[in-house]
Amino acid sequence: MAFLTRNEVFSCFVFYAVLLVIKMYILAIITGQVRLRKKAFANPEDALRHGGLQFHREDPYVERCRRAHINDLENILPFLFLGAIYSMIGPSLPVARLHFLVFFLARVLHSVAYLFALRAPTRSLAYIVAQIPCVSMALQILVAVAAYA
Amino acid sequence: MAFLTRNEVFSCFVFYAVLLVIKMYILAIITGQVRLRKKAFANPEDALRHGGLQFHREDPYVERCRRAHINDLENILPFLFLGAIYSMIGPSLPVARLHFLVFFLARVLHSVAYLFALRAPTRSLAYIVAQIPCVSMALQILVAVAAYA
Amino acid sequence: MAFLTRNEVFSCFVFYAVLLVIKMYILAIITGQVRLRKKAFANPEDALRHGGLQFHREDPYVERCRRAHINDLENILPFLFLGAIYSMIGPSLPVARLHFLVFFLARVLHSVAYLFALRAPTRSLAYIVAQIPCVSMALQILVAVAAYA
Repeated sequence: MAFLTRNEVFSCFVFYAVLLVIKMYILAIITGQVRLRKKAFANPEDALRHGGLQFHREDPYVERCRRAHINDLENILPFLFLGAIYSMIGPSLPVARLHFLVFFLARVLHSVAYLFALRAPTRSLAYIVAQIPCVSMALQILVAVAAYA
Repeated sequence: MAFLTRNEVFSCFVFYAVLLVIKMYILAIITGQVRLRKKAFANPEDALRHGGLQFHREDPYVERCRRAHINDLENILPFLFLGAIYSMIGPSLPVARLHFLVFFLARVLHSVAYLFALRAPTRSLAYIVAQIPCVSMALQILVAVAAYA
Repeated sequence: MAFLTRNEVFSCFVFYAVLLVIKMYILAIITGQVRLRKKAFANPEDALRHGGLQFHREDPYVERCRRAHINDLENILPFLFLGAIYSMIGPSLPVARLHFLVFFLARVLHSVAYLFALRAPTRSLAYIVAQIPCVSMALQILVAVAAYA
């Protein structure tokens, strides 16, 4: 564990990052369960196994789950990169933890707002709040490495 | 190569991770070839170049390739993160290799099952088997860094 | 900043990688602005806030922005992984910078070609040119770690 224990900021980042990966996995499980309950399958072979080709169809709530998942890909995956690099440019632990925690909480709220179709602009606000620490980290990293462009 | 040669587990992870990235690239090439063969283009400018706007249309097999690719984004990209971090928490090489190999083989089977529309639940089982090492790595990482939350 | 300043190639990679992450964020902002201007919302709760359920609809240009974004996920996210690992196998700085710069410029051109629907095959050529440094890095990494499979 040498590398991890030497860098508290990185360990803090890893904690929230892995929780967000698990959050994404949970979203995938929810999508699968909704497909089964609504009987709406993207593939004919799945529909055949669950009652017939008439269930090879779209469902609005399945599509909502898909959109929530794709939004996670667009935002959480870049965070996995930015947070790791940011941890290596020497930020103070309290400031770094604030970045990670704000992103984590806002992305959890984003998923909840998506799945429960909370009134607009709840979901959009969660998205914007989560972007703030990401843009902050991106700019700090650029300043740190600009000399190497 | 200092960092890589110092960590055998990490090098082992990198080997399978890069093979999976190449597998994703191959899926993109297949999608492009299917578009050309089926004459089904997502963009009017591509259709115009290949015979006319009537080929700006969807095709079920192109959509199948797309779903296989997006499922890779949802699963292989988080593995690239989890596997790298897991390599840093000091697992034994045989146990770590087992994690990487199971994921690798299950994801290759997942793509094959998707592209050849193998009978359900082949594809779903491949997805679930691939998730087992990911969840195992995620939990081991959380235990290792929980003190830094 | 110990790790970053010790490795010039890695710092050079990080510079272009972060610019590309910001490019992806800009694409997301553009998509949101197009949704507002065209009044085409993926979610009923957003449509309700912006005039009524009749604006819960698809728009061809919004879908074009979505495709550009998903293509970025498929290509820029694997680059974030490959570039980081490649930086650790000891390439010379000029050769490495060439890899990163070609990928960066080709992916910027890809987005421009997508958003402005430039005549085919501009976008496809940008995609292929961007893949060349990625495949080059992937193969060099495989050679470096093949002994650890």
